[in-house]
Amino acid sequence: MVVSVVVSASFRLLQAAQRKPVDQTPVWFMRQAGRFLPEYRELRKSHSILEICADPELAAAAAMTAVKALPGLDGAIVFSDILQILLPMGIKVEFAPGEGPRILNPVGTAADVAALRPVEPERDLRGPLGAIRILRRELEGRMPVIGFAGAPFTLATYLVEGGPSKDYAKVKRFMGTEPRAWDDLMTRLGHAVAAHLSAQAAAGAAIVQVFDSWVGVLGVDDYRRFVQPHMRRVFEALRGKVPTIHFGTGTAALLELMREAGGDVIGLDWRVDLADAWNRLGPDVAVQGNLDPSALLLPLPELGRRIDAVLDRAAGRPGHIFNLGHGILPETPVEHVAAAIERVHARRVS
Amino acid sequence: MVVSVVVSASFRLLQAAQRKPVDQTPVWFMRQAGRFLPEYRELRKSHSILEICADPELAAAAAMTAVKALPGLDGAIVFSDILQILLPMGIKVEFAPGEGPRILNPVGTAADVAALRPVEPERDLRGPLGAIRILRRELEGRMPVIGFAGAPFTLATYLVEGGPSKDYAKVKRFMGTEPRAWDDLMTRLGHAVAAHLSAQAAAGAAIVQVFDSWVGVLGVDDYRRFVQPHMRRVFEALRGKVPTIHFGTGTAALLELMREAGGDVIGLDWRVDLADAWNRLGPDVAVQGNLDPSALLLPLPELGRRIDAVLDRAAGRPGHIFNLGHGILPETPVEHVAAAIERVHARRVS
Repeated sequence: MVVSVVVSASFRLLQAAQRKPVDQTPVWFMRQAGRFLPEYRELRKSHSILEICADPELAAAAAMTAVKALPGLDGAIVFSDILQILLPMGIKVEFAPGEGPRILNPVGTAADVAALRPVEPERDLRGPLGAIRILRRELEGRMPVIGFAGAPFTLATYLVEGGPSKDYAKVKRFMGTEPRAWDDLMTRLGHAVAAHLSAQAAAGAAIVQVFDSWVGVLGVDDYRRFVQPHMRRVFEALRGKVPTIHFGTGTAALLELMREAGGDVIGLDWRVDLADAWNRLGPDVAVQGNLDPSALLLPLPELGRRIDAVLDRAAGRPGHIFNLGHGILPETPVEHVAAAIERVHARRVS
Repeated sequence: MVVSVVVSASFRLLQAAQRKPVDQTPVWFMRQAGRFLPEYRELRKSHSILEICADPELAAAAAMTAVKALPGLDGAIVFSDILQILLPMGIKVEFAPGEGPRILNPVGTAADVAALRPVEPERDLRGPLGAIRILRRELEGRMPVIGFAGAPFTLATYLVEGGPSKDYAKVKRFMGTEPRAWDDLMTRLGHAVAAHLSAQAAAGAAIVQVFDSWVGVLGVDDYRRFVQPHMRRVFEALRGKVPTIHFGTGTAALLELMREAGGDVIGLDWRVDLADAWNRLGPDVAVQGNLDPSALLLPLPELGRRIDAVLDRAAGRPGHIFNLGHGILPETPVEHVAAAIERVHARRVS
């Protein structure tokens, strides 16, 4: 056990998360186990997303499709869906093919919020926790396992909107009209998320990412008032347990507030200049990102230039984890992802 | 004629666009003639969007639904659709009810770009130009007429994606893979947009807004390389002809570059803090915005506080035009829009 901890600590991904020097910039990809991989599409032919998420063996196998196809990766993210945590809370989720997820009993009132049940991860989330244990054994010494959860706000957007949204008007109306019910909802979600991530760390996740994917739809005042206190509590609950990555998209105006809320690493989307963003965040935090996912669709020489541009902006400062600014697009050629990993690793880090 | 010019120049909206002091902060709303208005919905029962856009009388009547329902407005924006300019270029557009617009012959190759026809506004865009002439007569001395067009990039997203998009992967792939065809496309669109806006000014539009609504999906490098030179040319073509508003959403990381490209007024969405954004833009430019459209759905006291917060951030500095950060949502209560106009006008401007 002691040996495995020592080995884990030397992984580049974990070194970078602590802003320690590394021999090569660590690289992984959001949605690296996803539809762009033939092996993943094959698995999906016989199993739904929720089936895979609920079954430790299947979820581990899904995560391993990326590791097998792209052995150069510096981390294996567990396969799960951010909405899975809502099921034990009493929410019914449906994944219609070709569309986004649908919530069959969306939250619209204080009473709906009060009816949400608390989550006990070891009882309610055996799929991802079991998958992390399997991955930890399979990958011992090779790469760390990355755990994750959706952030309370991003989960709340699905809960209140009932699915993906264009303008997020329902969720904004809810928070602005019923601030107490909103606070209750975010508190419950925050507890569930913190418990789930703590359990993932206990199961063997060496680092965890909190996906606040849609938080960029909020203005600065709304973020400060309706989201930041809850994010702060999530990161406080994880302190000393596991290093954390705090990710969102469209967050150019929110970065300082996200940094205040917490996270050892701040995930940047592709819209911000990495060096400018890092300067704003300050030297005491690591950053992850920030290649545009669509860059992986470009011819290899152009893709290479764009990867170099991101690395140039990071300039070899300790504390950069290479990643996309959001998930891999389904139409991405696998060989472009492999070439990207090679390009990042080939770059000399001072 | 001289009298009308003198009257026009005294409109608050035009004063603010030149950063001159005003008695009250001018206010108008993007999509102020839209589905939230019963009178507009009535008009749409018997006419399609494209029918209204093509007919000067109908387009003027559509614009007037807002002026009649909300007489406190400081400007009347002509009714048109940003995609209308594509029709004379040879593009077929279909508005399916409930969905976004669809391009039936999207642009995918250099040959598709080369086949696009140039636009002669007085021949090809009689609807909006005629509507501006009618509105100018009807509103003489009451309020200025606002003209507009979509920006080349935003038009290109529809042309290449074939409609609204989630990730804009096709248009990003096109620009990154075929930079020469992209440059040709943007040059053609830039010519058409500049010609259309010049013709709108000649027809009587006292100010024009360029909607680069989706430009915020681009990273900083892509904007600088693939968009900024074309925007610069559009604003250069309009210099001395008409004051200009340069608007986009999700532009928190692009504001300085948009400012460099041009515009007397920079339109801000709701994600940025107005004071921070204005500081970054510098004192030599006016700003427009930046209330979250969903704030109009909130109870009036909360709406009032949010309007005050925007006005507080503008702090009475000459050069602020009050508006939303994007268009009015269809579910917005008309009386909330009326109350917002009153609240903005009631505020003492130093």
